[in-house]
Amino acid sequence: MTLVAAPIRLSTAAATFEADFAARLHWSADTDAAIEQRVADILADVQQRGDAAVLEYTARFDGLSAPGMAALELTQVELKAAFDAIPTVQRAALQAAAARVRKYHEAQKKASGESWSYRDEDGTLLGQKVTPLDRVGIYVPGGKAAYPSSVLMNAIPAHVAGVGEIIMVVPTPRGEKNALVLAAAYVAGVTRAFTIGGAQAVAALAYGTATVPKVDKITGPGNAYVASAKKRVFGTVGIDMIAGPSEILVLADGSTPADWVAMDLFSQAEHDELAQSILLCPDSAYLDAVQREIDRLLPTMPRAEIIAKSLTGRGALIHTRSMEEACAISNRIAPEHLEVSSRDPHRWEPLLRHAGAIFLGAYTSESLGDYCAGPNHVLPTSGTARFSSPLGVYDFQKRSSLIEVSEAGAQTLGQIASVLAHGEGLQAHARAAELRLRPS
Amino acid sequence: MTLVAAPIRLSTAAATFEADFAARLHWSADTDAAIEQRVADILADVQQRGDAAVLEYTARFDGLSAPGMAALELTQVELKAAFDAIPTVQRAALQAAAARVRKYHEAQKKASGESWSYRDEDGTLLGQKVTPLDRVGIYVPGGKAAYPSSVLMNAIPAHVAGVGEIIMVVPTPRGEKNALVLAAAYVAGVTRAFTIGGAQAVAALAYGTATVPKVDKITGPGNAYVASAKKRVFGTVGIDMIAGPSEILVLADGSTPADWVAMDLFSQAEHDELAQSILLCPDSAYLDAVQREIDRLLPTMPRAEIIAKSLTGRGALIHTRSMEEACAISNRIAPEHLEVSSRDPHRWEPLLRHAGAIFLGAYTSESLGDYCAGPNHVLPTSGTARFSSPLGVYDFQKRSSLIEVSEAGAQTLGQIASVLAHGEGLQAHARAAELRLRPS
Repeated sequence: MTLVAAPIRLSTAAATFEADFAARLHWSADTDAAIEQRVADILADVQQRGDAAVLEYTARFDGLSAPGMAALELTQVELKAAFDAIPTVQRAALQAAAARVRKYHEAQKKASGESWSYRDEDGTLLGQKVTPLDRVGIYVPGGKAAYPSSVLMNAIPAHVAGVGEIIMVVPTPRGEKNALVLAAAYVAGVTRAFTIGGAQAVAALAYGTATVPKVDKITGPGNAYVASAKKRVFGTVGIDMIAGPSEILVLADGSTPADWVAMDLFSQAEHDELAQSILLCPDSAYLDAVQREIDRLLPTMPRAEIIAKSLTGRGALIHTRSMEEACAISNRIAPEHLEVSSRDPHRWEPLLRHAGAIFLGAYTSESLGDYCAGPNHVLPTSGTARFSSPLGVYDFQKRSSLIEVSEAGAQTLGQIASVLAHGEGLQAHARAAELRLRPS
Repeated sequence: MTLVAAPIRLSTAAATFEADFAARLHWSADTDAAIEQRVADILADVQQRGDAAVLEYTARFDGLSAPGMAALELTQVELKAAFDAIPTVQRAALQAAAARVRKYHEAQKKASGESWSYRDEDGTLLGQKVTPLDRVGIYVPGGKAAYPSSVLMNAIPAHVAGVGEIIMVVPTPRGEKNALVLAAAYVAGVTRAFTIGGAQAVAALAYGTATVPKVDKITGPGNAYVASAKKRVFGTVGIDMIAGPSEILVLADGSTPADWVAMDLFSQAEHDELAQSILLCPDSAYLDAVQREIDRLLPTMPRAEIIAKSLTGRGALIHTRSMEEACAISNRIAPEHLEVSSRDPHRWEPLLRHAGAIFLGAYTSESLGDYCAGPNHVLPTSGTARFSSPLGVYDFQKRSSLIEVSEAGAQTLGQIASVLAHGEGLQAHARAAELRLRPS
């Protein structure tokens, strides 16, 4: 049977556009009650029984039996051995990618992650102290799709932030370890690593067990069980975000070779049947050209089946009245990945308000950003770019306000605070301020 | 009956210290299953029936019946009228506090909230674009304790960030409006305000109704229903944090007048019976002196009953071996408010790793920070300062990565990406990179 990748063809000029567009965008993050309940049970069990529960779930769900948790720890020696054993070209690529990711996140720390303070004229000091988290857990998906790049993207920002200990968990179904994942953990400077996954791994990190240390925050994407578990432990520990299916939106003015854009749409679609690839262009003939390239290239792709399902089920080629309109639609979607495949990307960039990452110009394929440009590839999905941000150094830091009121400052501030505190009926607040006032 | 405020007296030198200390710290954020279910029902109902459901819950829970949602909106005219009607001294205090809070948050934006970028030698651009959220909702508790200062602390950072619309919700049980809250909304530049509260207000903001606009993020503290609702809508919208009972920890070297410290402990305890006030000091005689001041001052406090319950039930005076040990204990607690009541606060500040806000020196009472020093008073509670931060401008901004790979850059990066993508079995990713390579 011939595979067909037929993204829906829409036009903003059509009367039915709004309805068709809404239907295509629809993706429900609604959680499955059965998954919710199983996750709640697993969390409670691991909280109560610790290692024993983690071992049982790992045997049951991952088909990996171990005599004790120690057997599920990857030693530094094993990580280094994996690194030493992979082909030279992979070693070099991992190190080059890591160096670029590190450089970007160091710039990020310098731009927005340093402590600061100022003094009022009366000597009162105000500021903010920025400190790294003590210990974090990073969840690395395993199984079908084990991604060494995710190890770099989670561990390096934590490292740059100055986190003391980075604990990695990665499921290894039936004990099959991914050498590149282990090598990446070595390159990224992971402190300890365990071959556990699912809700049981999230629970072990959130509550701690005799073997797995309790962390302050858990980052990294995972399946529905992992997402549900992260949401449940939020508050006990910090979490980064709840990831939905991956998405790319390409704004094209028609100047980029059509096969490049077709391949960019594929590179999102190949992740997952639920992944979403959308192309917006004011030039209808260009949309035809991209569809022709899709048809031509599809049979050459090893993951053609997933690509076809994703593009046919969730993809769209949308004809817009203008690039301006395309930008406006992009803002409604708030995509995870946004390619501005235009001769003049800086003309459109200021119009783009919501996106996880913005890829400017024909040469900036999403895949370059996924692996090695430098910015993080853990990005907000499902429209959450409206209010959340790429994983970054800031996710591995926290801030404390600093206040040092001078004796003179206490006179001015004390009077204001006294009035407002009495207004709120909080007399102890008022009197604490008043006690610092000089007798008049 | 004479009220007694008897915080537990502990010594780190005692054999039972660890157990006693753990017992005193224990506070469970475990949610009540009944509350959880009611909140889930309310959210689903508001999502489905919109305004009609909000009106019904407001009538039922707040004793406030209205013919339609329009009647529950506070107009700008009404906010300004409230401001004009309050005493001059309160108007001046609100404006002075707002100016200081604004100045601090502007410094925060400048220090950590601006876009940045750099270029590689090959012309590749990497950076991060920082943009404000479009629309946010701020929850202001009403009822027993309506806090105008919370209006300022939530709305001003949003305003400084550049948020387009700030939607305030504040319950007004039986229709009783707090003039200072309305006046603060006017001063802080709230865009629209509704007299609704509880889970139904959170739902209205998260999903939108015919009258209440859907927001991108909801901030501000509330009761158990509000906290549960915020946690449930997390993902649909952003939320700030889940607040637990308020806490203060005072590190004292014995140089601050004992009545000042006693009053600072009161000012936390008066919030809530579950609030926690802890004093750590290496000088046992000073702890005695503070207890004497507690006994002397308690009968003079209008909220003496709450203070007595809070201090007796959850407070502690802890004798430590040294200030260094006191700092180490403070790091274990990760308190919301941390006073360093010492002659030499800058000696201890570098040892303090986890706290929402750090108040340095005898003149810096927590209450000055609560109202008008400038930093935010919405702070991480229950040990979450280990991984989270005060509410700030950054909560009302999000970041988008910027990547513009030059033709030359695509050659270097393309080769790295190709190797790593093939290593992950993602061939479309690899080919998208390879298509940008010049034929060699």
